[in-house]
Amino acid sequence: MKTLRIIKIGGNIIDDEDALQFFLEDFSKLEGLKILVHGGGKLATQLAGKMNVEVKMVNGRRITDKHTLDIITMVYAGKINKNIVAKLQAHQCNAIGFTGADGNSIVAEKRPVKTVDYGFAGDILKVNTNTLEILLNKNITPVFCAITHDIQGQLLNTNADTIASELAIAFAEDYKTELYYCFEKNGVLQDVNEDDSVIENINTKTYKTLIEQDIIADGMLPKLDNCFHAVNNNVHKVHIGKPDMLFTSTPHTTIQA
Amino acid sequence: MKTLRIIKIGGNIIDDEDALQFFLEDFSKLEGLKILVHGGGKLATQLAGKMNVEVKMVNGRRITDKHTLDIITMVYAGKINKNIVAKLQAHQCNAIGFTGADGNSIVAEKRPVKTVDYGFAGDILKVNTNTLEILLNKNITPVFCAITHDIQGQLLNTNADTIASELAIAFAEDYKTELYYCFEKNGVLQDVNEDDSVIENINTKTYKTLIEQDIIADGMLPKLDNCFHAVNNNVHKVHIGKPDMLFTSTPHTTIQA
Repeated sequence: MKTLRIIKIGGNIIDDEDALQFFLEDFSKLEGLKILVHGGGKLATQLAGKMNVEVKMVNGRRITDKHTLDIITMVYAGKINKNIVAKLQAHQCNAIGFTGADGNSIVAEKRPVKTVDYGFAGDILKVNTNTLEILLNKNITPVFCAITHDIQGQLLNTNADTIASELAIAFAEDYKTELYYCFEKNGVLQDVNEDDSVIENINTKTYKTLIEQDIIADGMLPKLDNCFHAVNNNVHKVHIGKPDMLFTSTPHTTIQA
Repeated sequence: MKTLRIIKIGGNIIDDEDALQFFLEDFSKLEGLKILVHGGGKLATQLAGKMNVEVKMVNGRRITDKHTLDIITMVYAGKINKNIVAKLQAHQCNAIGFTGADGNSIVAEKRPVKTVDYGFAGDILKVNTNTLEILLNKNITPVFCAITHDIQGQLLNTNADTIASELAIAFAEDYKTELYYCFEKNGVLQDVNEDDSVIENINTKTYKTLIEQDIIADGMLPKLDNCFHAVNNNVHKVHIGKPDMLFTSTPHTTIQA
């Protein structure tokens, strides 16, 4: 089985032009099959400000009204995604930018309204791997932004961490998939104020203990739930840490079932 | 030789939500291999207005400074392109959105500064058909917006008519390529005020006569130069007219060498 790496980068890299440049140069040199998934960073919020579109949040989650969806589509699928693709081409990494609508690759449904109406937020129903697989085997790297569609013509805003994990799960049948979540910390920390206190390995059993001992910071819980969802669905390993973990032997957290 | 149709739509369709919807529904039913190329319409200018970015024009041509390039990338490659792709998927037409950076498909150079500095405007150097051909043969329709790249990491603004003709020329070696320019008129008109006065056929010889007789409107000259550039480089036929020409036997102008 060939190895496929799904690598997700977040706002800390996207928002820093130099950091992004260095990352993409290193990323382009990674051998083997790979897919890049990127978040949106602060750019969408900045553009909303310039256009006087109010950013609505409920419980820390963005409400995606029609105007916000337009902004997200412009910033994520336009400015960020296409600049990443152009920069990868400059480093001889042949890339193609994707939303879930492209190649019908990620199908979602508009999140049902319960207590909160999240607007045009999409929960993933299905990943279609065929077209992506053809491209990967031609040595082309798909670059995904955090947008899906409902096959009814509607684009939907979808969490980039979830896109990464669902891609890894969908490919796990035919590839040994490894998922990398790059963020600003060295991994899951024993002490949130000590960047050196990385917990290097977590499995289902130790995760329970860590939660019982109240060691996992609240902000990490949804990320770790995503990780365990992945490893419980045949994803080989999940790695969390600074992007350096991809290129050097930097300490980071590895999650396995 | 298989036939490949390259179809370019302009602002009159992009700017009218209903017209775009109808067009995409009909387009999705067209049998055979096809590539869609779209312009930007008024949306980029509107967004520039909202963001207080000044639109600079010289001789009717937009000057693409850094801010304008950002806006174009957001509007063309983000909002317009991805909404078209999502709408095609709703009509069971499997599409993937492209700039020239994606798959390194269209390489351009920043226009050299002579009397005017057009900024980040790109003149096409090369079209790479391989990735597009793989997708076309999997029944996937590439959808191009008017952006190219220089393989140095720089996106460039490139005229959509030119993108369409250069795609048609590049594919002419392996396919019988037909180029369709859809716009608001029925074709090249004998009398610019009479939409029924369509000149149905033009070739190199009659084109010269029409120019000598001062029948071709000034605005049509660059479009027709593009058309003759195409048919003089192995493109089988070029058609100019309303989008209906694709779906019914509407009168329009056909150009052949």
